Amino acid sequence: MKVKVGVNGYGTIGKRVAYAVSRQDDMKLIGVTKTKPDFEAYRSRELGIPIYAASVEFLPRFEKVGFEASGTLEDLLNKVDVIVDATPGGMGVKNKVLYEKAGVKAVFEGGEKASTAEVSFVAQANYEKAIGKDYVRVVSCNTTGLTRTLSALQEYIDYAYAVMIRRAADPNDSKRGPINAITPSVIVPSHHGPDVQTVLPINIETSAFIVPTTLMHVHSIMIELKKPLTEKDVIDIFENTTRVLLFEKEKGFDSTAQIIEFARDLHREWNNLYEIAVWKESINIRGNRLFYIQAVHQESDVVPENVDAIRAMFELADKWGSIRKTNMSLGILK
Amino acid sequence: MKVKVGVNGYGTIGKRVAYAVSRQDDMKLIGVTKTKPDFEAYRSRELGIPIYAASVEFLPRFEKVGFEASGTLEDLLNKVDVIVDATPGGMGVKNKVLYEKAGVKAVFEGGEKASTAEVSFVAQANYEKAIGKDYVRVVSCNTTGLTRTLSALQEYIDYAYAVMIRRAADPNDSKRGPINAITPSVIVPSHHGPDVQTVLPINIETSAFIVPTTLMHVHSIMIELKKPLTEKDVIDIFENTTRVLLFEKEKGFDSTAQIIEFARDLHREWNNLYEIAVWKESINIRGNRLFYIQAVHQESDVVPENVDAIRAMFELADKWGSIRKTNMSLGILK
Amino acid sequence: MKVKVGVNGYGTIGKRVAYAVSRQDDMKLIGVTKTKPDFEAYRSRELGIPIYAASVEFLPRFEKVGFEASGTLEDLLNKVDVIVDATPGGMGVKNKVLYEKAGVKAVFEGGEKASTAEVSFVAQANYEKAIGKDYVRVVSCNTTGLTRTLSALQEYIDYAYAVMIRRAADPNDSKRGPINAITPSVIVPSHHGPDVQTVLPINIETSAFIVPTTLMHVHSIMIELKKPLTEKDVIDIFENTTRVLLFEKEKGFDSTAQIIEFARDLHREWNNLYEIAVWKESINIRGNRLFYIQAVHQESDVVPENVDAIRAMFELADKWGSIRKTNMSLGILK
Amino acid sequence: MKVKVGVNGYGTIGKRVAYAVSRQDDMKLIGVTKTKPDFEAYRSRELGIPIYAASVEFLPRFEKVGFEASGTLEDLLNKVDVIVDATPGGMGVKNKVLYEKAGVKAVFEGGEKASTAEVSFVAQANYEKAIGKDYVRVVSCNTTGLTRTLSALQEYIDYAYAVMIRRAADPNDSKRGPINAITPSVIVPSHHGPDVQTVLPINIETSAFIVPTTLMHVHSIMIELKKPLTEKDVIDIFENTTRVLLFEKEKGFDSTAQIIEFARDLHREWNNLYEIAVWKESINIRGNRLFYIQAVHQESDVVPENVDAIRAMFELADKWGSIRKTNMSLGILK
Repeated sequence: MKVKVGVNGYGTIGKRVAYAVSRQDDMKLIGVTKTKPDFEAYRSRELGIPIYAASVEFLPRFEKVGFEASGTLEDLLNKVDVIVDATPGGMGVKNKVLYEKAGVKAVFEGGEKASTAEVSFVAQANYEKAIGKDYVRVVSCNTTGLTRTLSALQEYIDYAYAVMIRRAADPNDSKRGPINAITPSVIVPSHHGPDVQTVLPINIETSAFIVPTTLMHVHSIMIELKKPLTEKDVIDIFENTTRVLLFEKEKGFDSTAQIIEFARDLHREWNNLYEIAVWKESINIRGNRLFYIQAVHQESDVVPENVDAIRAMFELADKWGSIRKTNMSLGILK
Repeated sequence: MKVKVGVNGYGTIGKRVAYAVSRQDDMKLIGVTKTKPDFEAYRSRELGIPIYAASVEFLPRFEKVGFEASGTLEDLLNKVDVIVDATPGGMGVKNKVLYEKAGVKAVFEGGEKASTAEVSFVAQANYEKAIGKDYVRVVSCNTTGLTRTLSALQEYIDYAYAVMIRRAADPNDSKRGPINAITPSVIVPSHHGPDVQTVLPINIETSAFIVPTTLMHVHSIMIELKKPLTEKDVIDIFENTTRVLLFEKEKGFDSTAQIIEFARDLHREWNNLYEIAVWKESINIRGNRLFYIQAVHQESDVVPENVDAIRAMFELADKWGSIRKTNMSLGILK
Repeated sequence: MKVKVGVNGYGTIGKRVAYAVSRQDDMKLIGVTKTKPDFEAYRSRELGIPIYAASVEFLPRFEKVGFEASGTLEDLLNKVDVIVDATPGGMGVKNKVLYEKAGVKAVFEGGEKASTAEVSFVAQANYEKAIGKDYVRVVSCNTTGLTRTLSALQEYIDYAYAVMIRRAADPNDSKRGPINAITPSVIVPSHHGPDVQTVLPINIETSAFIVPTTLMHVHSIMIELKKPLTEKDVIDIFENTTRVLLFEKEKGFDSTAQIIEFARDLHREWNNLYEIAVWKESINIRGNRLFYIQAVHQESDVVPENVDAIRAMFELADKWGSIRKTNMSLGILK
Repeated sequence: MKVKVGVNGYGTIGKRVAYAVSRQDDMKLIGVTKTKPDFEAYRSRELGIPIYAASVEFLPRFEKVGFEASGTLEDLLNKVDVIVDATPGGMGVKNKVLYEKAGVKAVFEGGEKASTAEVSFVAQANYEKAIGKDYVRVVSCNTTGLTRTLSALQEYIDYAYAVMIRRAADPNDSKRGPINAITPSVIVPSHHGPDVQTVLPINIETSAFIVPTTLMHVHSIMIELKKPLTEKDVIDIFENTTRVLLFEKEKGFDSTAQIIEFARDLHREWNNLYEIAVWKESINIRGNRLFYIQAVHQESDVVPENVDAIRAMFELADKWGSIRKTNMSLGILK
């Protein structure tokens, strides 16, 4: 019996999660919702994925252009075991009422507050906590990125400080700026540190900046160590950490542009880089401080977490069983 | 007997041509050259493609990091029937001496002068002229883009004027600017018009500008018609033109960002959009003037032309036989 | 007796017009309106310019931070002879009711429809038409730029076609994108041609594109001539045209970045370049077609027009008397 | 007797230093050098500043276009007491031989190694060390920015960590990228920490990133305190620190774009912001850690330091005498 999955919101994250779900042998993608019949909706139809109007109010938009929707969100909810809520940040909590009413489990994304779900989730950090749960929140791309590498170093961390240089808009967004400015989150520490703590009990503070690029976020991480560690140790740890990859500037990885090119060279769908990219040369220890720099593909790093979250919620596999299965299905390198 | 193909220069164009060649059943990719063992070289090795040093002077770079090259360009030339020269603009003419010496045919790219080859080539415009030739030049991405749509309209054109708004750098290039400026080619008309004329005998003038984006070139085209044409005629013509696709702003294609997203949604390798993208709503006729706007994916639109050029040079197929075969192999939509 | 001037909307255009008005010996700046007490309001106060709330509903914002406003727009209207409406596009027509009620003349900007005013205005093209009028519309930065050079060539123009490559956001705007895309106005010809015709009776069509830069718009202009003209003629004409300057790539003007640097080197306030910048080398004639490229400083080129419009409305000077006076006061080079 | 000053290299820094020198009553600008007669050279001539060829090899460029140079660098050196070397990074050390030969003192910029001069200099931190010296290095824009605020907090600093988000190119540079990427300095800590230590004996580490913007650098600073401090204390300290200004997001300073707009609103020449801009809301203390964010106008923050350095080298004034004089002459707010 496959778990029946719906995706509410077929945008940047939603379409990737739908794709990932469709590649799992223990899940079945039942349908997705859209607010309008744009090119993503037509593509979805080409792929044979049923499209539902995200709400009854949006149906006229579909009717107007003769795009036959399979119904509305309510109809979709009647057919699924779990819904992945990939709507814009803050809408998930409102949608939750509908999910509860329909009696379906729900996965929320990082744009929702932690309180929306029973557990905030990064598979390799706390898979077990989501087992059997009804409402799980996959944390944001940045929080997932931080948690992946920090959880691998957890026992060594006395204090972690991360400065996050964030891409301002996704590649398919031609509305948002800035075109030529750096925008700080002026409240320091930023909210990202407490967000990591919803998954990982470490002492962490962060600051955040938005810059005019679309490709990836970059994190400058500094850790005050509670016990000794060498650079080689860190390299070994990261080499043995799932969903973390080391990149060498020496091989031409000068910037996020070449990291994305690596994903393109792999012919990854949408150039997804599910893995967190750590620059190998950036791993440096000075006294009791460890420094490293990582890049996060904001469009895709949370995608495998959504798959794993569903497996945990339906007790389809144990932690490493699920992670291995997800990795294999998506071509995740390790 | 498959034609044995080598690729000299495994960069933006070279790696795509190598990939395209590897998907043809009448060609065999023998090897590629690199000047240094960067991540593209490692990827090539993973794919089982033999890597040759682009020149003996580059061998130490490979040796230094223990990357075993299969030899040098000269060695590669001894094993192939044809070499695709995808080196930086202006180097092809120098390399030609080596190709002549080795007795191999050669395909040059648009960075070379027309005089470097016997014929300048866009498959749908002048495939026949390349039949049996030894040296063929696939014209630049911009010239290919202009030729694709203008050749379909050729009999109607009294005068064509195209303003080209060019991407300043490819996505994997983090060195080139500008970051915040528009740079005109101050000599108007620009050299692109005469370049189109190496393939298509029409009256055309162009002007060109560089802007801070990496995704696509955009062309604003105005044609003075020599005989009447309606907007519907033009739409019909383009719908029946290979390697040209119509996109509707109505469906969400606001900018080049969404056009590239379309290619990503198709899971095209490297988000290649081999086809020229014409905005359907932009096709307008006022009096005897036709206007339309098109976008050109500079990284990939010339790739199918390289495959077709090889077929013509070795007389492997006739024009439409080759075009259909190439289109099929690369997932080109029509 | 000086004409008493108010400025409704103290943003990009409003603050420059206020500055320009304050430098005229036949005008007096009475006050400006703001919707909120941001840093521009504080600067205005430092300069001794009275600030009024743009509407009574905005007063609490000022009171909250203890910023004493001099009243509201209504109060300002009671003290002025003319109001310059520099509010966001489309608001002017709504404000007009207030201006009529207060019995003050009004200058509108290019974001309003032509029908909002009695005349659309570019000083050197049609100063006389605004003499004695109550409602005058200074056309947009792009239309002003086109009109400046085209009016100088008017008698030679059979047909003009301009492709406009527009800056996406002003330098002080960190919200608007795109960051990495080219956005066409898909309806070709665009609305800019008819807008030029509100000032200049010529046959003109345009197309328009938005690109990720903040500095200047660039226009690629092609003119079909009705009588012969040499390149030297055009250079002579532009050298004798007010508010048009020739720039040579030869001297380092590669792009809009260096043109703005020229204004910075002049220590122009806000690096205003009131003049339209034509690249000298871009002036080329082929057969009966004239080509040239110009750049338009969108933040400031309309500023002198506002001053001249007021002079015409109050019959303070004749055309060249006003233009010379305005030019002198703002350091306009010719 | 005024000190006779020459400027070798009339680019971004050189032209601003020349301007600043020309506004001092105890200095006289004798001339500047250029490598070519571009628009900056023409502007310099308009201002009555003698232009010398940067080397005899560049003379033909001037002769070719009939631009009369006043001689070469050697000639200039014979007329001055001190030369400000504003040539590209790394050239100063080569030029030093010429300065020694001519027996003139020299000010070097931050692109040179500390060993090139006798002392590395930021006026408010170590003016006294430059008194009477022959060779002084004004440190880089970033180092100056860090030193300005850190020196004010020096007694409280146990450890400082700064992440520097650097503008990739200056506004007048249309060659350099990246257009769409983030480029880390992969060696962490970066060289900027040790550079601060050439001026200020504190424990500091840094990491650095290049992003696609031209306006300002931004620094995210974290300090581990050696003695208690409140946020109010820090605000008081910065309010009493010369060449440091507090900006409030509350007043509309969302990003570097509005900070530069502030300088434009002041009608500062070239929109120079000589002062370091600290976001007031970003000053936060958590436990023993102080956080704040500052922006640095890379084109101008070092300019007053050059003036002060000259005064120290010629013993024209004591520390605060010089700083006050420089501030007054350049309109520095405090």
